[in-house]
Amino acid sequence: MPTFKITIAYDGTNYVGWQVQPNGPSIQEKLQQALFKITEEKTVVVGSGRTDAGVHAWGQVASFETASTLSPEKLLRALNAQTPYDITVISIERAPDDFHAIRNAKKKRYRYFFQDGRILDPFGLRYAWFVPFEMDEQAMHRAGQVLIGEHDFTSFAAKKTQTKTNIRHIYGLTVTRETTPLLSRIVLEVEANGFLYNMVRNIAGALQPVGTGRQSESWLGELLALKNREHPGMTAPPQGLFMVDVTYD
Amino acid sequence: MPTFKITIAYDGTNYVGWQVQPNGPSIQEKLQQALFKITEEKTVVVGSGRTDAGVHAWGQVASFETASTLSPEKLLRALNAQTPYDITVISIERAPDDFHAIRNAKKKRYRYFFQDGRILDPFGLRYAWFVPFEMDEQAMHRAGQVLIGEHDFTSFAAKKTQTKTNIRHIYGLTVTRETTPLLSRIVLEVEANGFLYNMVRNIAGALQPVGTGRQSESWLGELLALKNREHPGMTAPPQGLFMVDVTYD
Repeated sequence: MPTFKITIAYDGTNYVGWQVQPNGPSIQEKLQQALFKITEEKTVVVGSGRTDAGVHAWGQVASFETASTLSPEKLLRALNAQTPYDITVISIERAPDDFHAIRNAKKKRYRYFFQDGRILDPFGLRYAWFVPFEMDEQAMHRAGQVLIGEHDFTSFAAKKTQTKTNIRHIYGLTVTRETTPLLSRIVLEVEANGFLYNMVRNIAGALQPVGTGRQSESWLGELLALKNREHPGMTAPPQGLFMVDVTYD
Repeated sequence: MPTFKITIAYDGTNYVGWQVQPNGPSIQEKLQQALFKITEEKTVVVGSGRTDAGVHAWGQVASFETASTLSPEKLLRALNAQTPYDITVISIERAPDDFHAIRNAKKKRYRYFFQDGRILDPFGLRYAWFVPFEMDEQAMHRAGQVLIGEHDFTSFAAKKTQTKTNIRHIYGLTVTRETTPLLSRIVLEVEANGFLYNMVRNIAGALQPVGTGRQSESWLGELLALKNREHPGMTAPPQGLFMVDVTYD
């Protein structure tokens, strides 16, 4: 059947995450419901990666098959008419019939936002981790460079999950400060060939005490060398995380 | 009694507006409650202007008197500990005892945001007016220039309110397009010595059909010349409006 590739943006605040779950509304469910209303087919929308409850996306990519003969333009408009206001299909294209949003993904990019300092941005609560201290983003940037390259990232995996391999390749990691209309915020950006479950939030959680000065810049390297999740590094809260884009061949 | 001047930012989504009202929570009420908890005094917090339900502020200014001997720094921290997460006191300073946030205001600046085009920004719903057509921000900018200067703005006043005079002086008005991480939005910025009730929203509502091409660029001038509110210009919805700053002597 014809396969489509869609790029989706969503505010994850009101969802249990990407994946269909019995305990509440998910992004995948809303897209599948929208497709059912349009095509009367029960389709599975395959996302490039599962985002957790409260995690946002500017460029999640998903694929689905449909026998519908609607043009991509009409399908895009119909989808956006059916999805809730906080889920938007940004673009759509016909993909090769064997295209699969997970299997064909080559690179993924995430951003994680921290809002530091005593004065909280009243517009940032749903989109950043508030850290009530001044943070040194340059120290965080230097500390994170040790993660670049191919490594066993077991230390930054979720405690409970098991995967065939915990080896991933981080192509780039930067920590910078950007101004907002009101204040400023710190942005961690990471690009890799793939991520373990909770990996970006665990990297953000390990960088936080480097930013506040409670850990030295060598801490990330020490954690990486442990190859073990049993260490005092935190998992950063979900609302600071944005899936930015996914690269395919 | 010692008088303080505070600058406040708030997300107006969950409030009935600045002013204390019986029908729901207001920004003024939350600030007065916070001050009561800190000082045990019933104080009136005087805002530089009343913002409506759903209108936001980056730089609302307010004044209040207190017999408290707390330093401004301690008062700032105590206020932010007591206010809800979507109201932040950005700064505080001792002001002359006769300082009054309304009477002493010389200039006010507002921004109004439009999000145009077919694809909605899922992060923008609470902070912009969605206009599902492409808009021409340059035409809007040119159309708005006729409002600059001292004029009788009766045509842009709210229908029901009466003021001593409807003459105001607009110092600057620009319409530009700015990119967001996902899409782009159009920003109307207006600075004046004061604004009639709903004046910015009525200017934004009149500029909207110029942007979409349903009205010519001369329309704003025609409306201004009417000196009468009975015309087909719309009042733009509140969520696109931000009080940016207030200038004092």
